[in-house]
Amino acid sequence: MRVTDLIERKRDGGALTREEWAGLMRCYAAGDIPDYQMAAMAMAVYFRGMEDAETEGLTAAMLESGDRLSLAHLGRPRVDKHSTGGVGDKVSLVLAPLVAACGVAVPMMSGRALGHTGGTLDKLEAIPGFRTDLPRDRAVAQLERLGAVLIGQTDEIAPADKRLYALRGATATVPAIPLIAASIMSKKLAEDLTGLVLDVTTGAGAFLTRLEDSLALARTMIALGERRGCRTVALLTDMNAPLGVACGNAVEVAESIALLCGEGPADVREVTLALATEMLLVAGLTTDATAARARAERAIDSGDALEMFGRIVVAQGGPAGLVEDPAAHLASAPVRRVLAADRDGIVQRVEPRAVGSAIITLGGGRSRTTDVVDPAVGVLVHRRPGARVTAGEPLLTILARDEAGAGAAAAELASAVSLADAPPPLRPLISHRVTAAGVEELPVTVAH
Amino acid sequence: MRVTDLIERKRDGGALTREEWAGLMRCYAAGDIPDYQMAAMAMAVYFRGMEDAETEGLTAAMLESGDRLSLAHLGRPRVDKHSTGGVGDKVSLVLAPLVAACGVAVPMMSGRALGHTGGTLDKLEAIPGFRTDLPRDRAVAQLERLGAVLIGQTDEIAPADKRLYALRGATATVPAIPLIAASIMSKKLAEDLTGLVLDVTTGAGAFLTRLEDSLALARTMIALGERRGCRTVALLTDMNAPLGVACGNAVEVAESIALLCGEGPADVREVTLALATEMLLVAGLTTDATAARARAERAIDSGDALEMFGRIVVAQGGPAGLVEDPAAHLASAPVRRVLAADRDGIVQRVEPRAVGSAIITLGGGRSRTTDVVDPAVGVLVHRRPGARVTAGEPLLTILARDEAGAGAAAAELASAVSLADAPPPLRPLISHRVTAAGVEELPVTVAH
Repeated sequence: MRVTDLIERKRDGGALTREEWAGLMRCYAAGDIPDYQMAAMAMAVYFRGMEDAETEGLTAAMLESGDRLSLAHLGRPRVDKHSTGGVGDKVSLVLAPLVAACGVAVPMMSGRALGHTGGTLDKLEAIPGFRTDLPRDRAVAQLERLGAVLIGQTDEIAPADKRLYALRGATATVPAIPLIAASIMSKKLAEDLTGLVLDVTTGAGAFLTRLEDSLALARTMIALGERRGCRTVALLTDMNAPLGVACGNAVEVAESIALLCGEGPADVREVTLALATEMLLVAGLTTDATAARARAERAIDSGDALEMFGRIVVAQGGPAGLVEDPAAHLASAPVRRVLAADRDGIVQRVEPRAVGSAIITLGGGRSRTTDVVDPAVGVLVHRRPGARVTAGEPLLTILARDEAGAGAAAAELASAVSLADAPPPLRPLISHRVTAAGVEELPVTVAH
Repeated sequence: MRVTDLIERKRDGGALTREEWAGLMRCYAAGDIPDYQMAAMAMAVYFRGMEDAETEGLTAAMLESGDRLSLAHLGRPRVDKHSTGGVGDKVSLVLAPLVAACGVAVPMMSGRALGHTGGTLDKLEAIPGFRTDLPRDRAVAQLERLGAVLIGQTDEIAPADKRLYALRGATATVPAIPLIAASIMSKKLAEDLTGLVLDVTTGAGAFLTRLEDSLALARTMIALGERRGCRTVALLTDMNAPLGVACGNAVEVAESIALLCGEGPADVREVTLALATEMLLVAGLTTDATAARARAERAIDSGDALEMFGRIVVAQGGPAGLVEDPAAHLASAPVRRVLAADRDGIVQRVEPRAVGSAIITLGGGRSRTTDVVDPAVGVLVHRRPGARVTAGEPLLTILARDEAGAGAAAAELASAVSLADAPPPLRPLISHRVTAAGVEELPVTVAH
């Protein structure tokens, strides 16, 4: 097999066989194929796409390049959620304890911040002492005991994906639908799941900005999951504005705790409950969506979900009193700067990329994988699209390490919030539900 | 400047500024940008192309990444030729002494075999002792003294191009027209030329197979040359069959010597004289094409071109008696195997890629830049498209190191020559002449 021949075939619109993808990824994971050849292949895939059988072959090759969990002995359904990312998206932190409190095992494997989007691992590590790098045995033991564990992708899980994922970030080949699908599913299928719920974000703050691309991604991932016996469902959610108020790391942990207390912004709560409902459905706990939603709401109202979060935090090395007094444990930024409305009006847009970029500038995100994240900094988004504001009212609060950082972030955020006299077009927060059976357009519940 | 942003812009169909190309290539040449990012950029350029200003910016950046010759003190016009490559193309070996014998300085900088195409440097090195890696001062001194020097691209000339060229070969991004144009012109413009003649090959054995691509490449290169004060002309030549009889290294040197003696195959002679005519015209020796052609023919007939070749060979370390008795000095292959016609008929095609690939199999070419070339092996093409043959008549002769090599090459060449009853469609050997003024379709002189 000559690698240049395979790149050339893909470049010219042809397809590789499953065996060719398997061979390619095996050699790549072993270091026998250089990054530059895989970079050219990834860009060719960006332009030419992949046939279904190719995506399956690539997914299988990446899955089989590493270890896979065996969780059947838990005797409970195992369900995870994956989001394609956004700004202010702290859903995983709420969802894992919530669904675990309902009796489903949640082996949640998350990623780090990269580019303008945040990462669950960085948010969790804003909790002092919290370890996301648990050894496999300890992670499985915690799953047995508590029903939930929140960890990062280990070196052993899909190492071929790990290498390709880092390469894609550095070569502008992230938004290639088959590569996104194969990357996500190779990791998720390694978790030995009964079911998987996908949160496919779409919009200015997501990797995909067009609804048709998100639908294509959802369909591709569902086909990959179902073919391997993992019930897979996707919700398409809007990412044209940050989710919730808090954007950053420690502030998102605090907002997650508020959500587990039944408080917090309505948009995050709605997305969280919708995803929880789907997780309970694919877990097979019930076939009635209304009952599933009621079960999830009950886990919050009863305090079970909050208690579960506290137990997970302690089990993974965090402080015992976090949920009772978050402020006592979480870092806070020494400098706060408010950006206020310069006129009366209605919020049209809150640019999620501007917010994400400002967080990087503040030191709370990553432009390179090696950047160290400052947990304390962030941006609070006080008003969402559709909100009516008066001149002088706070729109954003910058949480900075120092005045220089606050100034730089303020410059980046100067035009992040736009105001006008008329209301902006209504965008449903959760627009579609996709299953193996097809696509369902959802009634608008919360919009912005 | 974030490299991923530049790749992303090109990926999405945008253009980089001259300054961005300059910065990118400066960092790449310095090793500050990894190959994988440049590979992704090259593939994006393959799909999206480049605007004229971008190609100029890239060419300037690669040119300025290295040393440039200063040859104005020669007091003579300096003209070089570049071919986009083919199988059996030994034109450079004949052209340099021929044009030098007419009083034009020829600082000819050539490349090595890669893929199915041969390389002038490898052919020259089939001459025992011949050095193509002359230090710059010695090359200039030889140019002053003889009027011609045949060397390779030094590490000092366009190092950014050198790195990108190797990368393109390994990433299936060779046939991107702006990258081809910038690569060729960045090297040629470093030679401080008065004029440049381009042999743009088109067909099954060339990198470009479509006439419109070749015309686009010719126009792009001419614009790049003329803008920097180098008179540039292109001939479009056919590369649907190997050029001449001899394909390999030592055998092509022998055929070149025959051509310099006024013998040799008509097709190579015609291409050589047409290119020589253009070189004398861009040199400004005359403005009359008929006179230029007569001057070139006289250089052959008088023996001046042959004598010049002999002097170049000696000056660059080769044996003194080469042109008088080539067979005494050139390596010959121990095993010869003839492939004969299995029926009466007319030759339809002689597949140049099959011949080029067989030469690699025999050890006379390169599939990797680090491969060592065997000068003795090769393939002789006895009958060209349009030739009438009878069953049993030799079509090809394989020149091999051993029986195993001959057998492997024979398998690759089994269907390289196709026969039929009707004559094949006529293809003009030299189809178009392109100058800054426009494209001229040429009358058919030699065709096949």
